[in-house]
Amino acid sequence: MTAPVIGVFDSGFGGLTVLKALLRRMPGAEYAFLGDTARLPYGSKSRRTIARYAAESAQFLVERQHAEFLVIACNTASALALDAIREAVDVPVLGVIEPGAGAAAANSATRDVLVMATEATVASHAYAAACRAHGLRAVEKACPLLVPLVEEGWIDPAAHPVTAEVVRIYLRELLAEAEAAGQSPDTLVLGCTHYPLLRAIFESAVPSGMKVIDSAEATADEAARRFGGIPDCVAGSGSKIRCFATDSVEKFERLGSRFLGLPVGRVELVDLGG
Amino acid sequence: MTAPVIGVFDSGFGGLTVLKALLRRMPGAEYAFLGDTARLPYGSKSRRTIARYAAESAQFLVERQHAEFLVIACNTASALALDAIREAVDVPVLGVIEPGAGAAAANSATRDVLVMATEATVASHAYAAACRAHGLRAVEKACPLLVPLVEEGWIDPAAHPVTAEVVRIYLRELLAEAEAAGQSPDTLVLGCTHYPLLRAIFESAVPSGMKVIDSAEATADEAARRFGGIPDCVAGSGSKIRCFATDSVEKFERLGSRFLGLPVGRVELVDLGG
Repeated sequence: MTAPVIGVFDSGFGGLTVLKALLRRMPGAEYAFLGDTARLPYGSKSRRTIARYAAESAQFLVERQHAEFLVIACNTASALALDAIREAVDVPVLGVIEPGAGAAAANSATRDVLVMATEATVASHAYAAACRAHGLRAVEKACPLLVPLVEEGWIDPAAHPVTAEVVRIYLRELLAEAEAAGQSPDTLVLGCTHYPLLRAIFESAVPSGMKVIDSAEATADEAARRFGGIPDCVAGSGSKIRCFATDSVEKFERLGSRFLGLPVGRVELVDLGG
Repeated sequence: MTAPVIGVFDSGFGGLTVLKALLRRMPGAEYAFLGDTARLPYGSKSRRTIARYAAESAQFLVERQHAEFLVIACNTASALALDAIREAVDVPVLGVIEPGAGAAAANSATRDVLVMATEATVASHAYAAACRAHGLRAVEKACPLLVPLVEEGWIDPAAHPVTAEVVRIYLRELLAEAEAAGQSPDTLVLGCTHYPLLRAIFESAVPSGMKVIDSAEATADEAARRFGGIPDCVAGSGSKIRCFATDSVEKFERLGSRFLGLPVGRVELVDLGG
């Protein structure tokens, strides 16, 4: 019996943090990761365009890489294109937003949560809606400096106090907003696939007693629950990972290893059309 | 005699800092500014695609807004598409890179200069080439955190020490690189249209004796030299500015005033096609 192929899709390479979390739980699976780097950022594009790009990317993973399960490791595509992807392919599809909201619901006693994410994800209010469905109130904040800080590699709290300072500023503003709304948040959801690299910084910055929920980890937990029954998925002779990108293969190879925590190896360039 | 129309083009709205500098020198002209916000960032696209987008934008300003002179207030388009723009339209075209390099050459005694710019501009090495043509040696550095810091509005040195800290880190790395190359820079060129908003921070951060050259100001100086002879351009009953964008009109209106130093008023949405 061959190991199943799990397809992981992102508009860039931040979704490699989700792949990293999947690998820890299902080391026996094979993985095909696609970063649609030629067409990023998705955040500034219309819902219709994003849906078309995401559906094409999903079809590449299913039809050409034989993925039997898709993880949409991209907050924007999860927020705006999950239905379009489900229509385009015939395999189960899991996004990152619902597992993040579910993990927040499992943790929160006060039922008030904070969400930090990119501008596009916050503008979609997808986390707020997913939290509401779990009976939570969410205050969301766009934190546009955090992705470039991670991509600069300024992620070590000791070597880069400036990153910790930026996180503290955003968190202070977010806590003030929650307070103004009469909320008592006890949970912070990291709603961007770049943010797990700043997890240590977030954990030192939050008030004592506040839990930090990483959507990448929550998504991998949910994927493992759905897949856990397949023996080849949880044990095997080591995972096989193939990485694809639609542009900027060099940047992907250079930065990707930091996100994956492993060398990404050779990244194949693929053309999905304009 | 009617005032001449000067067309100003950027992929986003950062180029409004160039328009601001033009307004101070030629308050009698009329201005048509186009931000191709639907298709930004240009930096991650191929030279051919950028050339097509920039040529279409230039044609809009000349054919539909009757611009008699074009200022390309976008470093990426200036670096990669100036020839394509000159082929597409029949009016004089001025980019931002050559004036920046020219101002550096007029200032530098050591003939060694530093350039801070975006990733895409640095990757093109357009400033290094323009500096070399003036007999200067240039060390360039990509500073990807500075645009998001400006767009967050964290530009006041007193209220946002974190921005000054980021500028100091970049400058320290750049000075170390120049020293390793045996150079003695006495001039820093700001090679991005967002950076003029951080000018006070740059000026406090540079070593004493180092001059900060703002490409926006240098470009406006050059434009005024070419246009200075037209009386309507230097005096008049106040400038008339029309702003156009291909997307995100709301963000343009909200952030644009900070760059222009004046309300941008109503921004018209235009469709230049895909």
